Amino acid sequence: MEARIRMQKLRERIMTADEAAGFIQDGMTLGISGFTRAGDAKAVPMALAERCKRTGEAMHIQLWTGASVAEEVDRVLAEAGIVSRRLPYQSDRLLRDAINRGDIMYTDQHLSLTVEMIRSGELGRLDVAIIEAVAITENGGIIPSTSVGNSPTFAAMADKVIIELNTRQSPLLEGMHDIYLPGPRPHREPLPLKEVNERIGTSYIPVDPDKIVGIVLTDRADHFVNMVSGDEETEMIARHLLDFFETQVKSGQMPPELYPLQSGVGAVSNAVLSGLKNASFKNLTMYSEVLQDAVFELLDSGVLAFASGCAITVTPEHATEVMQRLHEYRDKIILRPQEISNHPELIRRLGIIAMNTALEADIYGNVNSTHVCGTHIMNGIGGSGDFARNSLLSVFVTKSTAKNGQVSSIVPMVSHVDHTEHDVDILVTEQGLADLRGLAPRERSRLVIEQCAHPDYKDALLDYVERAELRGGQTPHVIEEALSWHQRFRETGSMRITEPEYV
Amino acid sequence: MEARIRMQKLRERIMTADEAAGFIQDGMTLGISGFTRAGDAKAVPMALAERCKRTGEAMHIQLWTGASVAEEVDRVLAEAGIVSRRLPYQSDRLLRDAINRGDIMYTDQHLSLTVEMIRSGELGRLDVAIIEAVAITENGGIIPSTSVGNSPTFAAMADKVIIELNTRQSPLLEGMHDIYLPGPRPHREPLPLKEVNERIGTSYIPVDPDKIVGIVLTDRADHFVNMVSGDEETEMIARHLLDFFETQVKSGQMPPELYPLQSGVGAVSNAVLSGLKNASFKNLTMYSEVLQDAVFELLDSGVLAFASGCAITVTPEHATEVMQRLHEYRDKIILRPQEISNHPELIRRLGIIAMNTALEADIYGNVNSTHVCGTHIMNGIGGSGDFARNSLLSVFVTKSTAKNGQVSSIVPMVSHVDHTEHDVDILVTEQGLADLRGLAPRERSRLVIEQCAHPDYKDALLDYVERAELRGGQTPHVIEEALSWHQRFRETGSMRITEPEYV
Ligand SMILES: CC(C)(COP(=O)(O)OP(=O)(O)OC[C@H]1O[C@@H](n2cnc3c(N)ncnc32)[C@H](O)[C@@H]1OP(=O)(O)O)[C@@H](O)C(=O)NCCC(=O)NCCS
Ligand SMILES: CC(C)(COP(=O)(O)OP(=O)(O)OC[C@H]1O[C@@H](n2cnc3c(N)ncnc32)[C@H](O)[C@@H]1OP(=O)(O)O)[C@@H](O)C(=O)NCCC(=O)NCCS
Repeated sequence: MEARIRMQKLRERIMTADEAAGFIQDGMTLGISGFTRAGDAKAVPMALAERCKRTGEAMHIQLWTGASVAEEVDRVLAEAGIVSRRLPYQSDRLLRDAINRGDIMYTDQHLSLTVEMIRSGELGRLDVAIIEAVAITENGGIIPSTSVGNSPTFAAMADKVIIELNTRQSPLLEGMHDIYLPGPRPHREPLPLKEVNERIGTSYIPVDPDKIVGIVLTDRADHFVNMVSGDEETEMIARHLLDFFETQVKSGQMPPELYPLQSGVGAVSNAVLSGLKNASFKNLTMYSEVLQDAVFELLDSGVLAFASGCAITVTPEHATEVMQRLHEYRDKIILRPQEISNHPELIRRLGIIAMNTALEADIYGNVNSTHVCGTHIMNGIGGSGDFARNSLLSVFVTKSTAKNGQVSSIVPMVSHVDHTEHDVDILVTEQGLADLRGLAPRERSRLVIEQCAHPDYKDALLDYVERAELRGGQTPHVIEEALSWHQRFRETGSMRITEPEYV
Repeated sequence: MEARIRMQKLRERIMTADEAAGFIQDGMTLGISGFTRAGDAKAVPMALAERCKRTGEAMHIQLWTGASVAEEVDRVLAEAGIVSRRLPYQSDRLLRDAINRGDIMYTDQHLSLTVEMIRSGELGRLDVAIIEAVAITENGGIIPSTSVGNSPTFAAMADKVIIELNTRQSPLLEGMHDIYLPGPRPHREPLPLKEVNERIGTSYIPVDPDKIVGIVLTDRADHFVNMVSGDEETEMIARHLLDFFETQVKSGQMPPELYPLQSGVGAVSNAVLSGLKNASFKNLTMYSEVLQDAVFELLDSGVLAFASGCAITVTPEHATEVMQRLHEYRDKIILRPQEISNHPELIRRLGIIAMNTALEADIYGNVNSTHVCGTHIMNGIGGSGDFARNSLLSVFVTKSTAKNGQVSSIVPMVSHVDHTEHDVDILVTEQGLADLRGLAPRERSRLVIEQCAHPDYKDALLDYVERAELRGGQTPHVIEEALSWHQRFRETGSMRITEPEYV
């Protein structure tokens, strides 16, 4: 324990999760560590939910995290009916349902922005931060575990800090983090980071030790989930994209090591990364958020030279191996606060190639990544907006159909816009790749239909475009029909047109 | 002339506009100086249009500028049928019509991005740059006139450079520009700018003198246009916003000198700035694109201490005075390349308050700034996306109705999205101000209707929301009705519901 809690006086603050949960009262705002189910503080939230179930006390809290967190937090707290407000990202089915019912107010935010808003007081005060750590330094500094997320700012801004010291997490994680907090605006210094593998901060999260009111010992593992594995379609998407990169390199538009890569969450993203294994690239770098399975395979094979991220999220089958071999990855990985991994300043400076996933895209290249049929949220915008707007190249991938082919992911008009046509350079489905750079909307529509739409829907899309163009405009639409595909899906369970509706 | 063209050998390249236009051939791409009708190169484009009319020769060029340019360029070239492709912004009625007819391919871009795309070769090569100057230095460097725009990159990337030396433009402009070009990615240095009034570059645009193929002498004035003057409604918008700023300062959320202000184009923006005259603020700063009339009034009265911009665009009635008193403004104004005025890195670092104009906004706070009824473009997204995404506070203003009250600017769903709810913090109409920060969509809708909608449309909007919420979702919609207000306007000339449509 001395090796894990190096500041003597803090050892006196060891307590049970129940005791620590005692600091949490109705009406409070909690900031809990965790990013893509890595490094969440789990013990205290579970104890809190237990307590509320037991006592039946009224409890409504606001819950802030880095990004999505495991069942032990989001599901358990939502199930207990404790969460009244949630931000900035989630991906739990049960929580999602509560949000879509309107039971929980969910503020879906650009992941780089939450801490700016907290610091400038726009979101109200933060009562308690609960942060998972692998160790506490001589000065009371927190060594985070498998993610950094928003924890540095939570620690700085919270009235009280509770640390979950997780002895299951590898002590080798120490030294892999780089904690840097930008100064106040408008007199902020430039962020000094110039290379993906550069360190600009400390290995620990600085915190006033007097604010640490409790330390809870735990050995609960990260609750990683198995990923839907790649299939033929995701492999084709990867193939199209890799071919494109190879062509760019051949034509001299991109250097052989490409530009630093960002890769979003989900099965398709992971497949694209996996595809790199068989491509001819070497010494690539990543400047991304979550480091998934494929990242470690690519580091092993030398395709990837370095990966900067905000969290390590690997599937259960890989987790043990990755954690055992952490010493091999220590000089190839840096974990940063999400404010830094997603910072517009750095994304623009480094010239990131951003690869994110769409639920649907429209013929003009606008992208919906969040709202099924325009209303029901899936996860949230996450960091995709930070990256897509400020990157050197913004790629969106999606399968051309969903729901067994009943839904076309290429539609006349997306039912919700997360990314406008200005932020979508390349669109890829298993059908092909559309390079939309420099094109006007009337050119984009033809190319998207030709390259990306599923053959079953091509004619209907072309017919739409042709009739829309008769009405004119920079971005032609038949306005009363623009969302009819979604309406049809809602009413009939399919976007397919069974009878001609335009005669 | 020696004072204006200080490199001797370049004096030999003085020629007529006709001769200079001779360098331009069918199929070429032209990069012409100019930003919001300031500092456009006008003589050569006019000569080119003249020539084509005279000879009837086939001529199709791609036209790149900084932002909108005067009639002498956009109208004249469009009228002559010469332009086949245009980017990144325009605001000419005739050109707009040609674009909406589909005769000209218009690529509407974030204003900070065009030069990044040019440098990385994504837009193809630039044949000829035509740049207005007030002088040429000993090294052949170009001293631009009333705007900087994209000219530094045009000069660097073009095969040939033509300079229009405009003797009508004040020589006092020399020294007011600050030209800085970021290095190549991914190994770019941080932009050193930390304060609005800091200089980080040179006073001239560096260019290889051997590329200067012609110098045309001209004395044609900038073709500024009169602005629709403010009215009662724009004044009320300004009042709501200034009250909000005052409250923010009182509560300690903002410093007394606020944060650096960006203010978009148009009558409403100018009215908001004008309104500052009568507010209690002192020593404000601006970090914006275009410096309009109100900026000079505010500098005179001491409300504004400094203004950084990309162009000086004043109405004809103020132009003479401003230009005559330029010596008084020299140490209070810096003109920068639009890449720098709009740079995400700097917008985020400086903590800009961005104020831009919406054509329409929806109940959830998504904003359409460009497409009338979702199809016909007005101007373009301009710099509004650079600012709204990366600012400290993003404000959008609009009157609550348009077209004599037949159009509600607050609609169930915008017909085109330029700015998503994530990038819209504050929405203001003459009816009131909605502070949307930290709210979930179901909260945003109630507040937007209550604060911003016109009384004539409030009931119908509320009715929509209530019925939509019955269907559920994070962002409830009645999808088949979401765009029906636009459809109704298209069909009946009004968004008003004359008979109940839902019975
Ligand atoms: C968009 C996103 C949900 C896709 O995730 P994924 O795992 O690759 O996608 P899948 O193809 O498995 O689809 C997920 C679900 O959406 C459904 N779906 C996909 N496309 C759809 C469409 N066009 N219409 C309706 N439903 C659709 C699928 O059927 C599936 O539903 P199910 O869970 O009920 O089976 C995910 O990438 C995301 O949340 N992105 C936004 C945040 C982000 O980009 N973060 C990256 C930086 S943090
Ligand atoms: C949005 C924008 C067009 C508003 O300009 P403005 O001069 O303040 O606005 P106005 O109220 O005069 O409206 C302009 C026109 O749009 C029409 N209009 C306004 N709202 C409308 C609506 N909801 N539906 C249809 N038409 C509408 C007006 O009737 C007017 O039409 P007219 O020219 O035929 O008379 C302008 O600010 C713009 O182009 N913005 C995008 C670029 C930008 O933000 N740049 C800033 C950083 S560069």
